[in-house]
Amino acid sequence: MKESNDISLFIPRLTIVGVGLIGGSLARALKERNLVGEVVGVNRTRDSLTKALELGVIDHWTTSAAQGVRGATMVLVATPVLTIPRIVEDFAQALEPGCVVTDAGSVKGTVVAPCEALMPKGAFFVGGHPIAGTEHSGVEASFATLYEGSRTILTPTEQTDPGALEQVRRMWEAVGSRVETMDVLTHDRVLGATSHLPHLIAYNVVNTLSDLEDDIRAEVFRYAAGGFRDFTRIASSDPAMWRDICLSNREAILDILTRFREALEVLTQRVRDGDRDGLYGAFARSKRTRDGIILAHKKADQG
Amino acid sequence: MKESNDISLFIPRLTIVGVGLIGGSLARALKERNLVGEVVGVNRTRDSLTKALELGVIDHWTTSAAQGVRGATMVLVATPVLTIPRIVEDFAQALEPGCVVTDAGSVKGTVVAPCEALMPKGAFFVGGHPIAGTEHSGVEASFATLYEGSRTILTPTEQTDPGALEQVRRMWEAVGSRVETMDVLTHDRVLGATSHLPHLIAYNVVNTLSDLEDDIRAEVFRYAAGGFRDFTRIASSDPAMWRDICLSNREAILDILTRFREALEVLTQRVRDGDRDGLYGAFARSKRTRDGIILAHKKADQG
Repeated sequence: MKESNDISLFIPRLTIVGVGLIGGSLARALKERNLVGEVVGVNRTRDSLTKALELGVIDHWTTSAAQGVRGATMVLVATPVLTIPRIVEDFAQALEPGCVVTDAGSVKGTVVAPCEALMPKGAFFVGGHPIAGTEHSGVEASFATLYEGSRTILTPTEQTDPGALEQVRRMWEAVGSRVETMDVLTHDRVLGATSHLPHLIAYNVVNTLSDLEDDIRAEVFRYAAGGFRDFTRIASSDPAMWRDICLSNREAILDILTRFREALEVLTQRVRDGDRDGLYGAFARSKRTRDGIILAHKKADQG
Repeated sequence: MKESNDISLFIPRLTIVGVGLIGGSLARALKERNLVGEVVGVNRTRDSLTKALELGVIDHWTTSAAQGVRGATMVLVATPVLTIPRIVEDFAQALEPGCVVTDAGSVKGTVVAPCEALMPKGAFFVGGHPIAGTEHSGVEASFATLYEGSRTILTPTEQTDPGALEQVRRMWEAVGSRVETMDVLTHDRVLGATSHLPHLIAYNVVNTLSDLEDDIRAEVFRYAAGGFRDFTRIASSDPAMWRDICLSNREAILDILTRFREALEVLTQRVRDGDRDGLYGAFARSKRTRDGIILAHKKADQG
């Protein structure tokens, strides 16, 4: 056992603003490990809060964020990414000295700078992104093992307090996540390429097939099985979340979409030209790259 | 037990041209069920044939297709789709009266009409496409249960002999496949949309990420996990097979790629404009469609 880890990790009072899958699962995981004193839940509506209380995910609740953060030593904001700065503004002046505020937004560029600027003297903001989730949402879908084996990216800036960063890191590590740090811009570009691009493409494939003429569409949907099912699984994600991601990470998404569309132009031209060598080369390169990524991850997981 | 099915299904002599995953698995499955007398294997090279003989997948072999089909009552051509008409031309004049020839090509437009035209009097061609496979290839990868729960599409024309069609149907059904018929053009459009488009898009996503600048690419590949892994699994498929599919199904692929690119233009414009309602509408529609497809398939599988 590492010395004094337990003491440094204990969170006397954690406030979760947005008690859903992400926030609820963190509360459950910390409670299961006795790493938290009290958990206060804040939502706009009562229904999900009374449900969370019944489930034992939270100990108290309020619909006022400013009331909810009183006495908190740690605050997690786990609401749709566009709403985060406004919510932090609502409660910032009520924070007590020493409190650490972090978030779980999928985009950091629209979150970190405004939230840092809102912190009163003695309170600290650390941008965070636990990369975890399921196809389900809401506190009923939360569970204590969601973060085991996951990754969390924290995005410290020059203003970030090192002690606050360390507390947030330990919190996510304690529930089983591997934590890495990245600057805000890199985070948004990396997630734009590995998560936002595939989601937009999968949505677009499904909508392309929906737009086919009636007769062929019926046949297409009857045969849309197997590989297609895996390929489009991510097109079943929450539309509001993905709308907010597109609005928040506009620049990085437009950049990677432009690159994708240019590469697709080239590939389409190769199909049009019946370019045997060009097609083979493109597919062989992609297979090599993809096999290499998977192998590297296998090694990393084992190491 | 259905009356006389066993008798009508028995294939005294089956010749498989191209003894790999697809042809080898059919031979194994028929042998396991005692539905075939002798299996003759034909490949261009000896190595895979002696391997297939050792494994008990075939009983005889030759590198000459014309010799291999002598005395055959059923011939399956399971070679890359572009080679099929040339191979059928090599052996057509050696076919004996009553022989049924079928194929396993992923595209039917470049296969069916030429092969039908090559049949001598008394021999019959039926276009087929067993939709099955794994990421591995070669006779060593073949196994008797590959077709259980799969689908096979047969593409009869006005010229197709009803008795020959019935024999091919029973052969695939006997090894566990659900058989449906479709006209050639519909087959190629449906597969273009549900299989060829997703493969090309997955290849293109992987290559787009490979083309990123060095610093960001390294980070991108480190984070390319989870959903990305599922999404790009199909980009690890055989490059030669996909080159041939692009060359053979050029028109249908260009048509669906054009539709995809047009839809992507609209989506990109919505991201550029920060169009909240447009983005939400597009994602919500896709989620509805995709959830509907999965539900319909679950019902079909249970029914």
